[in-house]
Amino acid sequence: MTPTKSAGAGYTLGVDLGGTNVRVGAYSRQAEKLHAMSFPTRLFDGPLPALNEIAAAVKKVRDQCAEHGDCAGVGIGSPGPIELPAGILSDPANLPGWAGLELKTELEKLVALPVTVDSDANAAALAEWRLGSGRKFQVQSMAMFTLGTGVGGGLILDGKLWHGDKGLAAEPGHTVVVPNGIACNCGSHGCLEKYASASAVSRMARELASQPGWEFLLGMADAQGLIKASVVAQLALSGKAEALAIFEQVGETLGRMLAAWVSTLNLPLYTLGGGMALCWDQFAPAMFRALRDCSQTYRLTAPTNTEVFEAGKTNVLPAQLGAEAGLIGAALLVDQLCFFSKTR
Amino acid sequence: MTPTKSAGAGYTLGVDLGGTNVRVGAYSRQAEKLHAMSFPTRLFDGPLPALNEIAAAVKKVRDQCAEHGDCAGVGIGSPGPIELPAGILSDPANLPGWAGLELKTELEKLVALPVTVDSDANAAALAEWRLGSGRKFQVQSMAMFTLGTGVGGGLILDGKLWHGDKGLAAEPGHTVVVPNGIACNCGSHGCLEKYASASAVSRMARELASQPGWEFLLGMADAQGLIKASVVAQLALSGKAEALAIFEQVGETLGRMLAAWVSTLNLPLYTLGGGMALCWDQFAPAMFRALRDCSQTYRLTAPTNTEVFEAGKTNVLPAQLGAEAGLIGAALLVDQLCFFSKTR
Repeated sequence: MTPTKSAGAGYTLGVDLGGTNVRVGAYSRQAEKLHAMSFPTRLFDGPLPALNEIAAAVKKVRDQCAEHGDCAGVGIGSPGPIELPAGILSDPANLPGWAGLELKTELEKLVALPVTVDSDANAAALAEWRLGSGRKFQVQSMAMFTLGTGVGGGLILDGKLWHGDKGLAAEPGHTVVVPNGIACNCGSHGCLEKYASASAVSRMARELASQPGWEFLLGMADAQGLIKASVVAQLALSGKAEALAIFEQVGETLGRMLAAWVSTLNLPLYTLGGGMALCWDQFAPAMFRALRDCSQTYRLTAPTNTEVFEAGKTNVLPAQLGAEAGLIGAALLVDQLCFFSKTR
Repeated sequence: MTPTKSAGAGYTLGVDLGGTNVRVGAYSRQAEKLHAMSFPTRLFDGPLPALNEIAAAVKKVRDQCAEHGDCAGVGIGSPGPIELPAGILSDPANLPGWAGLELKTELEKLVALPVTVDSDANAAALAEWRLGSGRKFQVQSMAMFTLGTGVGGGLILDGKLWHGDKGLAAEPGHTVVVPNGIACNCGSHGCLEKYASASAVSRMARELASQPGWEFLLGMADAQGLIKASVVAQLALSGKAEALAIFEQVGETLGRMLAAWVSTLNLPLYTLGGGMALCWDQFAPAMFRALRDCSQTYRLTAPTNTEVFEAGKTNVLPAQLGAEAGLIGAALLVDQLCFFSKTR
């Protein structure tokens, strides 16, 4: 049986379940961080040993927070896609062997608290809306794209997370921007994730490294052989046209996707977060060019200055919360309002 | 001053303002048609003489409906884009010289009733949700694409029309499906409207007619020299590969657009209405193929049989209301609930 939520409780717990690390944090109802810890995700023995480690961390953090009153519940942001509100994982690429896991049910058994599951990108969007640019600019509706290893999305409509019928809404990463383009793990071809994620930049850098005069790039790879987006951004910043062209590809495809969202949703604010958003200066010019080229709605509502928020316009800006958005957002899930399509 | 809406009124009036005809209809609060009339849109003297004719028609229809009690208000569906809720026309391609018209304010002056303005496609979507497939399948959220001379869209989220920040949401017709494709009147290149509207089919048929062996198509054009989509559909039905290829272009681009909406919104129901939807059998196979190819969300939620509604799945079906959807929908606008992004 699902434990009931205790009213007037003092704090909520967020769990950010990543393919590399798990973070667990306790936040007051005013979103102040009370205590947090992180540890590597136990990936290779199936989900149950990993869930046991998460439950143990939850217990540790609760012990540290005893003075702050009751814990109202646990929110967990997980790699998607996830069937909601049941909280069942589909087949997350970063969590091999976790397909079909009833994350909500299994974790509730272990922590004896109500658990709210959502995608990591939805959790980040919720935090950005409640505490970041959404709060700063006083909007009731906004979208956030999280540009990391993959590209995630979250959609806040009229003050609530929009999940759609099965929790599968807001997937810009797996929407096609290049018809018949590069094959994606999801089974489609030409998904945004293949052009605008950190992995996409690394792939393009590796391709560049195979060209005469660019072999030095291989020497700039990390221990895993990955040429990081930040390395390519540095080269672009120093004026290397080939490195800039990589970010033009990122910006062009992001702009096309934003154009589709703008023409479909006409929101006042779209924010870009995640590690790749740090390369804003490198990709933003191409992004705004494509957005303007591809959306009449944007052309009708473009701000005169794309660097500041203008009320009544379509604003595309970097997210304001940093890497902690996913963790705070997970803690906020406990109290969230959200939409699920209902029958009448 | 805006007249106030009289409570307990007996009926509402719908006005469907088209580039060719205006229709005015009175509907009971149970959506039964009480009286209707139509007349050619007065196009070439600017908007005010046309609005006077509409106001005269409104008066005539009200006179006919005296026995049905008070008229609660007038809803008008107009070619978009329209700035809402102010009801100001942008620059509708079918109504030359109407740009900037304050349709709501001007019409209220003439009819002395509260006027609700919306796009024709939003009005049709509202009718389809309230009285057509939305009611039949008991969904709270759905989208409708209207495939006519252009391609319009309407979006019902959680029982309300979604307008976005300025009433410019739900514009599939002016969203790019072919990057760097055919130039569109709106200023973009490769908009869906250039590939999946009745005009697009006529254009492709004209291109076909210039090829050897296809000159006979010109003889099948109407008085305006237009080769209608229904003519091309007949040829496709009789097995002409070149005619079928035209509908494959329609289906392929529609499928791409639907894929983007499905991956963004995860709605239970998308319907296609308007004249072109009558060619369903000709374009649907290519549409479902592209939809499946381009959306992971669709693949995770596709019904086993695309011809019937399956709860919990992503259903794409022909609209159930016919040509009257826009008129009934206009009358329904008077009582509608709708979303506008608010500041917090």
